[in-house]
Amino acid sequence: MDTADLGHHISSRFNEDLDRLRNSVLAMGGLVESQLQRAVEAVVRGDSELGLAVARDDQRVDRMEIEIDQACSRIIATRQPAAGDLRLIMAIIKAITDLERIGDEAEKIATLAARLATMERPADRYRELASLAGHVQEMLRAALDALARLDTRAAVETLAMDQAIDREYDSITRQCITFMMEDPRTISRVMNVTWVARSLERIGDHAKNICEYVIYMVHGRDVRHLDEQRVAREFAPGVVDGQG
Amino acid sequence: MDTADLGHHISSRFNEDLDRLRNSVLAMGGLVESQLQRAVEAVVRGDSELGLAVARDDQRVDRMEIEIDQACSRIIATRQPAAGDLRLIMAIIKAITDLERIGDEAEKIATLAARLATMERPADRYRELASLAGHVQEMLRAALDALARLDTRAAVETLAMDQAIDREYDSITRQCITFMMEDPRTISRVMNVTWVARSLERIGDHAKNICEYVIYMVHGRDVRHLDEQRVAREFAPGVVDGQG
Repeated sequence: MDTADLGHHISSRFNEDLDRLRNSVLAMGGLVESQLQRAVEAVVRGDSELGLAVARDDQRVDRMEIEIDQACSRIIATRQPAAGDLRLIMAIIKAITDLERIGDEAEKIATLAARLATMERPADRYRELASLAGHVQEMLRAALDALARLDTRAAVETLAMDQAIDREYDSITRQCITFMMEDPRTISRVMNVTWVARSLERIGDHAKNICEYVIYMVHGRDVRHLDEQRVAREFAPGVVDGQG
Repeated sequence: MDTADLGHHISSRFNEDLDRLRNSVLAMGGLVESQLQRAVEAVVRGDSELGLAVARDDQRVDRMEIEIDQACSRIIATRQPAAGDLRLIMAIIKAITDLERIGDEAEKIATLAARLATMERPADRYRELASLAGHVQEMLRAALDALARLDTRAAVETLAMDQAIDREYDSITRQCITFMMEDPRTISRVMNVTWVARSLERIGDHAKNICEYVIYMVHGRDVRHLDEQRVAREFAPGVVDGQG
C-alpha cells in the first residue's frame, strides 16, 4: 500500500474521522513530549515545584488515551474499516498505549526530580543524564514525526537509535555503581539517578514500539521482535549502510 | 451487559472465532505465567542455565502476541463486531500487549538470575525477593482467572493486590540501600537484586491493567486511572469493606 492511499477514501466523513483521529494522536504525542521535556528540566535544574507540576499533569495524558480509544472503537463500529484503514486504527490503539506509558515514565522522572532537588547536587549537574535525556527526546520526536508522516524510512532510521540509547544507559549505570562504591554516602541519591536513567531507557523502548507500528500501518508487516538489520534491508534499503 | 451474553451469538462461526481467540489469550497467559515462575526459580536456586533457557523462550511469547493480534484484525474485518463483542476484542488487543511485556520482564529477571548465579549468594537465598515474587505470581494468576471467567468482582479484588506489592517493593528497595551502605562490596550484586524487584513490581502493574480490561469488557466502562475505592464501590460492592 502506498502512503498516499491513507488520505483517499470514498466516504469523506470516514476521511474526516481518520484525520481527526490522527490529529488527536499527534496532540497526545505533543503533550507527552512536553511532559518529558519538563521532567528532564526539573531534574537538571533541581526544580522540585516543576517536578510536582509535571507529575500532576499526567492526568491529561491519561484522559487523552481514553478518548482516543473510544474514538477508535466508534470508528470500527460505525465505519467497519478494512485493510489499510483497519491497520491504521489497530496501530493507533497500540501506539497510544505506548504514549501513555511514556507519560507514566515522565511522571516518574518528575517525581524523582522533586526528590533529587532536596538532596546535594553534583558539580556536573547531572550532565550524563541530560545527555541521555537529549538522545531519548530526539528519538521520541523522530518517532512522532515518522508517525505523523507515516514515513517508514524515517521509522527504520529511528528504530536504530535505540541501541545507542541502551549503550548510554548501561554506561551511566556502571558509572553510578562506581560512584556508590567510592562514596557510599551517595548511595541514596545515586539510586534515584539510576531510576531516572532507567525511565529514560524505557521511553526509548516505547518510541521504538511506535516506529514498529508505523511500519505495520504502511506495509501490513509486523516487524516487532524481528532482527533490526533485516527490517532495515526490507523497508529502508540503504539506511543501514548509510549509517556506517 | 451480562457476562453470559458473551457466549451467545447469532452466528455460530463468529462464536467459534471468539472462543478460539479467548483460548489463545489464555494459552498465552499460561505461557507467560510459566516463564515468570521459571525465572523466579532461576533467581532463588541460583540456576544460570535455567535463567538462560527462560530468556530464550521469550520468542514463543512474542510469536503468540503477533498471532493473536492478527486474529483480532481478521475478526474485526470479517465479522464487523459491535458493542460487547467489539469491547472484548479491543480489550484482548490491549491485554496481550501487557502479557507480552510481562514476558519481557520475566526475560529480564531470567537474565539477571543468570548473572546473580555467578555471584556470592546471601544466606537467606533471596527470601524477600521470593516473597514478593510469590505475591506477584498470585496476582497474575488471579488476573488471568478473572479474564478467563470475565469476572469483574474478581478483577476488582485483584486490582487491590497491587498496592501491597508496591509497598513490598518499596521495602525491599530500602533494604537494598541499607545493605549497600553497610557493605559497599555488595553494591554490584545488590543492584541486580533491585532490578529483579523492579521487574516484579512492573509485572504487578501489568496484571492490574489486565483486570481493568476485564471490567471494560463486561461493563463498557474504562476504569483506568480512576480511584480504586470508587471502582470497587461501583463494580464490586462489598469487596472493599470485606477486606477490612
